[in-house]
Amino acid sequence: MKARIKVTLKKGVLDPQGKAIQGALGSMGFAGVEGVRQGKYFEVDLAETDKSKAMTTVKAMCDKLIANTVIENYEIELA
Amino acid sequence: MKARIKVTLKKGVLDPQGKAIQGALGSMGFAGVEGVRQGKYFEVDLAETDKSKAMTTVKAMCDKLIANTVIENYEIELA
Repeated sequence: MKARIKVTLKKGVLDPQGKAIQGALGSMGFAGVEGVRQGKYFEVDLAETDKSKAMTTVKAMCDKLIANTVIENYEIELA
Repeated sequence: MKARIKVTLKKGVLDPQGKAIQGALGSMGFAGVEGVRQGKYFEVDLAETDKSKAMTTVKAMCDKLIANTVIENYEIELA
């Protein structure tokens, strides 16, 4: 079973890297870019085949290692 | 219009950061982790409201700045 995890900064948390990308896009001639936020993306291959067990495991991984839940949200997709 | 972009390393490209996470998960007691690949995730807010024009713009952004297409693939979702 494969888990796809998106980790994004919470609203209100400053994202200087996103701002830099927004500035770069602007100076490259891309108009109408109103905002850029950068996050992280992970693909985890699991031996587990039960979806609900896998979800519990992946949530624990996110809480303990993959995301910093003080400033980040995460979203899990299993397939 | 909001574009969600996932940038992942192509198959065969080494991912030491992913390997490190895999090792860390193992040493934290998570069994059955067969592989971890780390990628990047971006959310871009665009003034453009036409979906096909937005797609063309975002593809150009990815090719020119956001992804390194020699070693990375990207996937765009518009909403």
